[in-house]
Amino acid sequence: MAAVGNESRHPVDPGSSKLQFAPFSSALNVGFWHELTQKKLNEYRLDETPKVIKGYYYNGDPSGFPARLTLEFSAFDMNAAIPARCCPAFGTLYNTNTFETFKSCDKKSLLEKEANEIWESIKSGAALENPMLLNRFLLLTFADLKKYHFYYWFCYPALCFPDGIHIVQKPVCLGDRFSLNQIQALQKAYDELCQTEGVTALPYFLIKYHDNSVVLSPLKKWDGFFQDQGEKVTVGVYDPCNLSHYPGWPLRNFLILASHKWGNILQSIEVLCFRDRTMQGVRDITHSIIFEIKLPQGVFGPDCPKAVGWEKNQKGGMGPRVVNLSECMDPKRLAESSVDLNLKLMCWRLVPTLDLEKIVSAKCLLLGAGTLGCSVARTLMGWGVRKITFVDNARISYSNPVRQPLYEFEDCLSGGKPKALAAAERLQKIFPGVNSEGYNMSIPMPGHPVNFSEVTMAQAQKDVATLEELIDAHDVVFLLMDTRESRWLPAVIAASKRKLVINAALGFDTFVVMRHGLKKPKQQETGNACFSTAPGPSDLLGSSLFSNIPGYKLGCYFCNDVVAPGDSTRDRTLDQQCTVSRPGLAMIAGALAVELMVSVLQHPEGGYAVASSSDDRMNEPPTSLGLVPHQIRGFLSRFDNVLPVSLAFDKCTACSPKITRTHYPATVHQ
Amino acid sequence: MAAVGNESRHPVDPGSSKLQFAPFSSALNVGFWHELTQKKLNEYRLDETPKVIKGYYYNGDPSGFPARLTLEFSAFDMNAAIPARCCPAFGTLYNTNTFETFKSCDKKSLLEKEANEIWESIKSGAALENPMLLNRFLLLTFADLKKYHFYYWFCYPALCFPDGIHIVQKPVCLGDRFSLNQIQALQKAYDELCQTEGVTALPYFLIKYHDNSVVLSPLKKWDGFFQDQGEKVTVGVYDPCNLSHYPGWPLRNFLILASHKWGNILQSIEVLCFRDRTMQGVRDITHSIIFEIKLPQGVFGPDCPKAVGWEKNQKGGMGPRVVNLSECMDPKRLAESSVDLNLKLMCWRLVPTLDLEKIVSAKCLLLGAGTLGCSVARTLMGWGVRKITFVDNARISYSNPVRQPLYEFEDCLSGGKPKALAAAERLQKIFPGVNSEGYNMSIPMPGHPVNFSEVTMAQAQKDVATLEELIDAHDVVFLLMDTRESRWLPAVIAASKRKLVINAALGFDTFVVMRHGLKKPKQQETGNACFSTAPGPSDLLGSSLFSNIPGYKLGCYFCNDVVAPGDSTRDRTLDQQCTVSRPGLAMIAGALAVELMVSVLQHPEGGYAVASSSDDRMNEPPTSLGLVPHQIRGFLSRFDNVLPVSLAFDKCTACSPKITRTHYPATVHQ
Repeated sequence: MAAVGNESRHPVDPGSSKLQFAPFSSALNVGFWHELTQKKLNEYRLDETPKVIKGYYYNGDPSGFPARLTLEFSAFDMNAAIPARCCPAFGTLYNTNTFETFKSCDKKSLLEKEANEIWESIKSGAALENPMLLNRFLLLTFADLKKYHFYYWFCYPALCFPDGIHIVQKPVCLGDRFSLNQIQALQKAYDELCQTEGVTALPYFLIKYHDNSVVLSPLKKWDGFFQDQGEKVTVGVYDPCNLSHYPGWPLRNFLILASHKWGNILQSIEVLCFRDRTMQGVRDITHSIIFEIKLPQGVFGPDCPKAVGWEKNQKGGMGPRVVNLSECMDPKRLAESSVDLNLKLMCWRLVPTLDLEKIVSAKCLLLGAGTLGCSVARTLMGWGVRKITFVDNARISYSNPVRQPLYEFEDCLSGGKPKALAAAERLQKIFPGVNSEGYNMSIPMPGHPVNFSEVTMAQAQKDVATLEELIDAHDVVFLLMDTRESRWLPAVIAASKRKLVINAALGFDTFVVMRHGLKKPKQQETGNACFSTAPGPSDLLGSSLFSNIPGYKLGCYFCNDVVAPGDSTRDRTLDQQCTVSRPGLAMIAGALAVELMVSVLQHPEGGYAVASSSDDRMNEPPTSLGLVPHQIRGFLSRFDNVLPVSLAFDKCTACSPKITRTHYPATVHQ
Repeated sequence: MAAVGNESRHPVDPGSSKLQFAPFSSALNVGFWHELTQKKLNEYRLDETPKVIKGYYYNGDPSGFPARLTLEFSAFDMNAAIPARCCPAFGTLYNTNTFETFKSCDKKSLLEKEANEIWESIKSGAALENPMLLNRFLLLTFADLKKYHFYYWFCYPALCFPDGIHIVQKPVCLGDRFSLNQIQALQKAYDELCQTEGVTALPYFLIKYHDNSVVLSPLKKWDGFFQDQGEKVTVGVYDPCNLSHYPGWPLRNFLILASHKWGNILQSIEVLCFRDRTMQGVRDITHSIIFEIKLPQGVFGPDCPKAVGWEKNQKGGMGPRVVNLSECMDPKRLAESSVDLNLKLMCWRLVPTLDLEKIVSAKCLLLGAGTLGCSVARTLMGWGVRKITFVDNARISYSNPVRQPLYEFEDCLSGGKPKALAAAERLQKIFPGVNSEGYNMSIPMPGHPVNFSEVTMAQAQKDVATLEELIDAHDVVFLLMDTRESRWLPAVIAASKRKLVINAALGFDTFVVMRHGLKKPKQQETGNACFSTAPGPSDLLGSSLFSNIPGYKLGCYFCNDVVAPGDSTRDRTLDQQCTVSRPGLAMIAGALAVELMVSVLQHPEGGYAVASSSDDRMNEPPTSLGLVPHQIRGFLSRFDNVLPVSLAFDKCTACSPKITRTHYPATVHQ
C-alpha cells in the first residue's frame, strides 16, 4: 500500500490492484508561525510539553491542487470557527526549545504513540462515536526566533493493513455511476446530515442509495442503518483529494476501523469519496469517485498495526522542512519583532515575573543629549522603550562623536547639527519602530543672565510652557544636563506634577545616579504648611536613620544644596567647560540611570518604593530585578558603588511644598 | 599726538605741525594659534602666568601694506631664527583660562606695568645698551579650544610726550635729500653695522653723513660718535611703516629715550626712517623718509609718562579681536584636535601625571563585535585609542542595533552586513582619524565540530595563522565573544606572546571583567618544568592569601575552569543563544573593560602590577587613576562590584606553561 506523492501527479502504478492513497500536504501559513512565535514568547517559553492544535482540510479544490491540511493563525484556539465546508482535524504540537532536540526527536516513537491512540479508539469504539479521533496529526517544530527560521516536520498517522487493500471495482466518477437525481439527493442528504450534526463538514458517513433516493447516516448509527446482513455497504468519506483514481489520506484509518468492526461480516465495502466543488457559482459533486474494495479479514491482533505518515520534505526525502520568514517580512516589522524577542526571552527563565509592558510603555523625556543623554537613550532602546524625547540647545561639535554615541563626524560639519534633532533622527536609524522627537531649545535657568527685552522674555516664557507640556506628556524625566542650575526648573515642574525623575551627573571619575523623591498626590498631603514628610527629631535617632525611607520622603538633587542658584558656566576654565571625565564613566552612569528606572518601575509601588541602601545588599531584594536605591554613587578609581539614602529637605529650593505649591511660574513670571 | 589708523590710509591732519605715528597691525597667523593650542594643552594647562614670546616686523613691504607685528609658529621659541631683514620684538603673553578673565582683565594696569619697565630701562640706561628693551608688546589671549575660537588683544606700548612732538622739517623722501652716492653709502653702512652686531636688522642707530660719506653707529656709542656739541644729530630707525609722511610706531619710545638722554643738550633731532624694499630684484632704500623734529625739554619727572598702545579691533573700536579657526581648518584635522583636547584636559588639573601616550598608542584587538565589542570600541575611541581591530564572523541581525551601539537598521537588510567590517566602517564614520579594521572570520574552537575535509581544515589553519598574526600586531587583546570556548585559542596565543588580555563576559545581571595574568618573559622563567609561579603551601596560609599577588601570578579566564572544552552553543534554547542580559549590562562591562585596561597601562609595571582587591579600596591607590584589580565582578541587581583576585592554576588548559611552551599549534595541527 503506497502513498501517492503530491509532487508526482502520476500515480505510481495505475494498473495495480491495490489501493493507493494521496497523502496530505501540510499547509502552514504565515499566520500560524506568527501565532506560534507569540505563544512561544509569551506563554510556552521553555515549556516543551505537547500542545493540542487544530487544522482543517477542504475538499473543493480544482484539480491540480494537492490535498492540504491547513494550519493558520487560529490553530491554537480550540473555539475558533472552522471555515465553511472544511473538515477539522486535531493535532499534537511538539515545539522544541533547541534545534538539537528537534533533530534528535524520536519520530518513530512519536508516530507509534499517536497510532496507538487511534488504534485504542478503534478497539474501544470511541472512534465510532467520534470519528474525529481517526483524523489526527502530529507537528514537530523548532522556531528559531532569532532568525525567523521555522523548522517543522508534519505527520498524519495512518494505520496500515499488512498486505494492503485489494480493489474490487476501480474508482469511477460519480457522474458515471449515479443519475442526476441520485446526485442531487446525495448532495441534499449530506447537507442535511451536516446540519443535523451541527458541523461544517462530516469526515465519515454511511450511505444507502436506490434509484431515486439517497439516505445518509452518521457512523455511530451503523447497526440500525444497515439492517440486512447481505446488504451492500457504502461508506462515505469527505475527501480532500481531487485525483480521479485515488482517495485521499483520511480514508485510511476509516478503512482500518471498518475492517476491525465489520471485517467478519463483510467481504467487501463500497467507498464514496465525497468531493464538493463550486465552479463558476455552480456546486458540483459529480467529480466525487466511487469504488469497491475487499475488506481484509482477521489481519489484526490486539497490538497496534504498523503506521506511516511523516511527510516528505521539499526535496522528496525524509526530512524536516524549513520556512524562512525573515525574507518575506517587512524589515521594519522584523526589527520590531526581533527587539521584542530579546526582551521577552528575559521572562522565560530568568525573571518570569518581569512586567515588560511597564517598561516598554514608559514615555521618557531626556533633558540633555550629550554624553549622558546618548547613553541613556541607547539603554532605553535596549529595554524596548518606544517613546523617547530629547531636549537640548547645543550643536554637535567635533569632540562629541567619540564620547556621545548617537553622533558621527558628518553631524559636526557646517557648525554642527542641533543635538536634540540629530539624536532623535539617529534613534530612528537604529530602530525605525521608536517614536523619538527632539526639541532644540534652552531650559530657562535661574542665575543666568537674561536680556530683559520683550523678545527674550517672550522666548523664555515660551520655553517654560513647552517644558511644562513636555513633562506633562511623559512618565519619566531624565536630568542629564551639564549644569546644576539647568536641572532646577525641570525638577520643580516634575515634582509638582509627580513625575518620576531620574538624575545623573558626572565628575571626573565619580558619578551620581538618583531618583528624586516622588511627592504624594495632593489629596494625601496634610494641610499643614509645614513639610509633613520631614523627619521629626525622634526619627533622627538610632541606626535606622536611613532605612525604610519611602519614596515620598526621599530628597531630590537640590535637597542637599545650600548654594543659591548661580551661573556655574561663567568663568569656567576649559577643563571645567568640557566634560572632563573618564570616557567610560558616562556609559556606566547612563546605563545605571536606565537600570534604576527599570527597577523602580518594576516595584509595585514604583517611585514610592522604600529606598534600598548599601546595607540592603544582604537582604532579599524588593523586586525580581533587585534593589531600588535612592542614589547610586560610583567611584571608578575604586570600581565601587555606594547606595546612600537621603531625606527631603523641607526648605529645598526645588522640591519643598513651598516651591511646588506656589508652582514654578511664580518664580519666573514675576 | 594721534596715531595714524591703518584702516584709514589718509592721515588725520596732513597739515599738522605735530608728528603722528602709524601703529602696528598685529599679524597673528594660524601657526601661532596652533602652537598656542599645543602649549596650552600640554604645557601651560591652567598656568596663567605671563609668558615671553617673540615677534618681528619687516620694513620692506610695498606701499599699501600696514606695518605689521607678526607672530607665528616660532613665537614661543626664543632661539628660533628671525627671518632675513626682520627686526625682532619681545612680548609678554597673558593667556587666560576663561573668557571672563580675558574680558575683565585690567588692561590699563597691564599697559602701565609694561610702560614703566620701558621707562625704567630708559632711566637706567639699559635701553641705550640694548635698544630691544624699547620694542616690547603685550598680547592678551583666550583660546576657546572647544570651538577653535581665539580671542586676543594686542598692545604695543608707546610712552607719550605730554604735548606731542613738533615737526621742524616735514618728512621728505630720502631720494629728494640724498645723492645716489650717499644712498649707496648708507645702504652699505647699514648692512655692515648689522653684520658687526650680528643681527638681521637693527632697530635703532646713529647716522653721520657728509657729501660723499655715511657713517653709522649703534646707540650705545653715542658719546664717542657725536663729539661736537653743536653737531646736527641724525638718528635712524628701522621703520616698518611705508607711508610717505609718517613714521611707524617703533620710533616713539626711541624719541622718549632721546629726549630723556639728550634733551638738555639738543634742540632738535633729525630722524631717518630706514625703509628697505626690494622691487623686481633691485634693492631700494630711496623711499626711506627723513625729517627733523623739535626735541621736547624738561617735560619728564621721575614718574613714567602716560602710555598708549592697545590695538583697535576690526570694527575700529577699542575691543578684542576674535579669530575663528574652525572654519578654515580641515574638518578631519579639527575632529582630531577636538578629540585630543578632551583627553588632554584631564591632564590639566585632575591627573597631571596621566601618560596619555601609553593609552592613545595602544593597539587594541577586539575579538567579538557584539554588545560588548561595540561598547568597548566606543570607550576606546573616547580614550583616543587610534588602532582598533575587530574579529567576528557573525552578521548583523535585526535585534542587534538597539543593543550593539555600532549598528543601525540599514545594516540588517539583505541578510545583514558582517559585523567586523561594519563595526570598523562605523568607527571611521564616528571619527575619521581612527585606524580601524575588521576581519570577518571564525575563531577556531576546541570541541566544535570540524568537518575534516581538506577545505575546512585548510581554512581552520588559515584562521589560526591570521589570529596569531593579529595578536602579534596588537598590544592588548580583548576577549568579548559570546562563548566560553572561543576564548580559549586567543587566550593561549596571547599568553604565549605576553600580550595584555582583557576579558569580559556577561550573565543576565552579572558580569566579569578581568585581566589575564601576564606571564614573565622567557628569560625570567625558571627552568623548572613545574609551574614556578604557583603558590607554595606556605603562601596559602593567613589573610594575605590574595594580597600582593603580582601580575605574573594571576589567573586567566580558564584557570578556575574544570570543564573540558565542549560546544556550549549546541543544544541551547533561544534564551541561551541570545544575549539575554539586562540591556545596561554590556555598556557597563564594556566601559569597565576599557577603564581597567587604562588603569593597568598607567601602572609603571603594566600587566605585571600587583592586583588590587576589594580590600585595597581603603588604601592609597597604586596609580593616579586608581586601583588595578585582577577581576571586577559586577552585580547589577545590587548595584555592586567586588574585586576578587585569583592565582594562576598550574594545570590551566589555557595559560599554564605546559600549554604555552608547547605552543598552541601543537593542539591544532596534530
